[in-house]
Amino acid sequence: MTAIRGVGRGDNRAVTAEQATRELLVELLRDFHRRAWVSGTGGGICGPADDGGLLLAPTGVHKELVGVDDFFTVDPADGSVIATPPNTALRPSECNSIFCLTARERAARSVVHSHALSAVLAGDLAGDDDHVAIRDLEMLKGIRGLGNRDVHLVPVIRNTPREPELVGEIQRMLDDPRFAGAFAIVVADHGAYIWGDDVMEAKRHAEVYHFLFEATVARNDRKKEGHR
Amino acid sequence: MTAIRGVGRGDNRAVTAEQATRELLVELLRDFHRRAWVSGTGGGICGPADDGGLLLAPTGVHKELVGVDDFFTVDPADGSVIATPPNTALRPSECNSIFCLTARERAARSVVHSHALSAVLAGDLAGDDDHVAIRDLEMLKGIRGLGNRDVHLVPVIRNTPREPELVGEIQRMLDDPRFAGAFAIVVADHGAYIWGDDVMEAKRHAEVYHFLFEATVARNDRKKEGHR
Amino acid sequence: MTAIRGVGRGDNRAVTAEQATRELLVELLRDFHRRAWVSGTGGGICGPADDGGLLLAPTGVHKELVGVDDFFTVDPADGSVIATPPNTALRPSECNSIFCLTARERAARSVVHSHALSAVLAGDLAGDDDHVAIRDLEMLKGIRGLGNRDVHLVPVIRNTPREPELVGEIQRMLDDPRFAGAFAIVVADHGAYIWGDDVMEAKRHAEVYHFLFEATVARNDRKKEGHR
Amino acid sequence: MTAIRGVGRGDNRAVTAEQATRELLVELLRDFHRRAWVSGTGGGICGPADDGGLLLAPTGVHKELVGVDDFFTVDPADGSVIATPPNTALRPSECNSIFCLTARERAARSVVHSHALSAVLAGDLAGDDDHVAIRDLEMLKGIRGLGNRDVHLVPVIRNTPREPELVGEIQRMLDDPRFAGAFAIVVADHGAYIWGDDVMEAKRHAEVYHFLFEATVARNDRKKEGHR
Repeated sequence: MTAIRGVGRGDNRAVTAEQATRELLVELLRDFHRRAWVSGTGGGICGPADDGGLLLAPTGVHKELVGVDDFFTVDPADGSVIATPPNTALRPSECNSIFCLTARERAARSVVHSHALSAVLAGDLAGDDDHVAIRDLEMLKGIRGLGNRDVHLVPVIRNTPREPELVGEIQRMLDDPRFAGAFAIVVADHGAYIWGDDVMEAKRHAEVYHFLFEATVARNDRKKEGHR
Repeated sequence: MTAIRGVGRGDNRAVTAEQATRELLVELLRDFHRRAWVSGTGGGICGPADDGGLLLAPTGVHKELVGVDDFFTVDPADGSVIATPPNTALRPSECNSIFCLTARERAARSVVHSHALSAVLAGDLAGDDDHVAIRDLEMLKGIRGLGNRDVHLVPVIRNTPREPELVGEIQRMLDDPRFAGAFAIVVADHGAYIWGDDVMEAKRHAEVYHFLFEATVARNDRKKEGHR
Repeated sequence: MTAIRGVGRGDNRAVTAEQATRELLVELLRDFHRRAWVSGTGGGICGPADDGGLLLAPTGVHKELVGVDDFFTVDPADGSVIATPPNTALRPSECNSIFCLTARERAARSVVHSHALSAVLAGDLAGDDDHVAIRDLEMLKGIRGLGNRDVHLVPVIRNTPREPELVGEIQRMLDDPRFAGAFAIVVADHGAYIWGDDVMEAKRHAEVYHFLFEATVARNDRKKEGHR
Repeated sequence: MTAIRGVGRGDNRAVTAEQATRELLVELLRDFHRRAWVSGTGGGICGPADDGGLLLAPTGVHKELVGVDDFFTVDPADGSVIATPPNTALRPSECNSIFCLTARERAARSVVHSHALSAVLAGDLAGDDDHVAIRDLEMLKGIRGLGNRDVHLVPVIRNTPREPELVGEIQRMLDDPRFAGAFAIVVADHGAYIWGDDVMEAKRHAEVYHFLFEATVARNDRKKEGHR
């Protein structure tokens, strides 16, 4: 974890911010693959480019193998591609429109797209409802703005055949005042989008939300059997 | 993961394709061992040799310890051994006949044989039926040709005392039009064979099918208890 | 695990005890992060400084990224800061008052604060009671002073909005003769504090208590379903 | 995994067999710790010394930190210590008498003592009976002499306050013709002893038995709920 430590300790001054971000994104994708949050080429991440654009991982590739030069740069205003990677076989991630929407609506400079099983099982808990409620967990404090006494509502939307078709429902959830404090949207049967002001906040939020999903699923299993 | 990154980034031009494949197979076996898909010498993998043959891991050895020179080369037409490894104590994997059958019938150039617990538990779900149905998961898109609205049928066959005796049932499943879209066959009480056009597709399919098995087992547990 | 092996094998004589402790704490935080005991900046650790003080990890940072120079030194008598790290952006952990209390009451020179899911689920088992009972496990011997026939009571206290507010209840539990043999306090919905005479005992106790939590939760699940 | 690969590939001819065994034991202890089979100083391993003795790990130390020079050499005929490690603070493992008994009765040259949760939960399945039955799993073939149609009986004995007190019950199980094909004995509430003719067979048996324990526990959970 060379790059991530550099970011953590501020000793990467010799490289540009964007180069450090590229190295950090590559390390996080490897870490997320090890955790089974991105696997079989699924999932993804974006982070800030130097010029106000977003660095976007390519689609259809094994995410733990993405290299520092493999990112697209896109304009969050409309998702248009500003810069392409040297490897001309690569295409930008299908997450592009959702990442850009989140960047515009929430000023997110980094978004993680997870395919973790815990996110899928948390989405199942919503049933016919449009959210899952998370409560009674200290780890809620790991989400910016929350305390451990808050009941945190995470929106859950239906899946669509193609990822860009999720945009309308995601827009509706981002506009919904009940979810103003959420830094994540769960897509049922699919996974979750989790964001932050920068890559390190997106990483922290990703770790926290996955913990919250696992804990809520584990407790729900036990409650249904009368354990609590 | 030196070799796997070389394959992913195309910077292994100085070595032959077969040498890169051997290094990749060795790395994948170590990764699969870490995931508990191959353990206690069980499981295996094959990939393409330069001359149209299949590189086949040896039998009865700890799979995470297989070296680049330890593979047999076999003729997929009949499973006959074309080339043997320098270590004369090694014998070809019992998967040979099944790997060659899959290569002939599906043009698979790489097959993974997994002994994962999730494959065994997914096989249990078939009960007296000859397949397990997988649905409502975005990760279905990770299987070539599938969308997330498809109901994907994975054939499940009974286990036999010796691995080559599975060939007849596997042939029958490969001939069954219900399973024409499957890149995997589950063997009850045993594991799964998972294949692709090349090693990286076999890897992607292996990651995806193991996720699908885990998710389907986890959801079935909850459904039986009325959670969904 | 360079530092931890040095401590284990006594070959770090060229560095001061405190420097070796700093390296050990850094390695343990990385290990604990890999185990999901500290994640999303949660959790923490302290260990002995050379001058009788406690080395305290900073708050609000990704714990696997803490460097050897990032620790505060605090006086366990009152929690006052004796020495600050060069990075002036860092603030001392909110665990400070609890770590110091444990140091005073139990002569603990090292305390681990875990946010593990297993600790949360073990806390759930207490229900309205103020402890969870652990029994019938050889691993109880891993706690100083215990045999495998002992019924070990681990206190469980309610969570509070802020960590320093836990001090009163922790003091009450440390004073309670029923819990005189405990080296851990579970905070419901939150995690656990686990301590020892030195860093290596705190590490051993942390490994043992997490095992005891996991085993007790797993057995309780099965008992409730009539498996035992 | 330098040493383990050397053993696997036979390229350690420059070092003595015992030195290679010491390096292998050290690597396996680190691997077992990562798997949570030995933690909090619990568990252990022995392997063959050059002179017919057994190399025995020390007691009460973190097993992942054991170094190549930290082993005792004991005489399997009576457990007497033939050679001590340079570090005079170390004492021989409490497993000594059981390891030596297994060496005498089964000609085992390597024994693994696991504290894995899966072994504890498998022991729970025995209830008032003296064994757990394992069936319908291909991985049974990973145990020397077994086929996948065999019903394999693994003896389960009660735990005792101190490890050497297990010797009588272990002797009785080793003498019981029902368990003649077993390479493992489960100690309820405690873990398992698993052995082989050499270190690599003990490693293979350890991987296989832990898989069998996990699979049998997972299937029993589902059967009790009517899943199978």
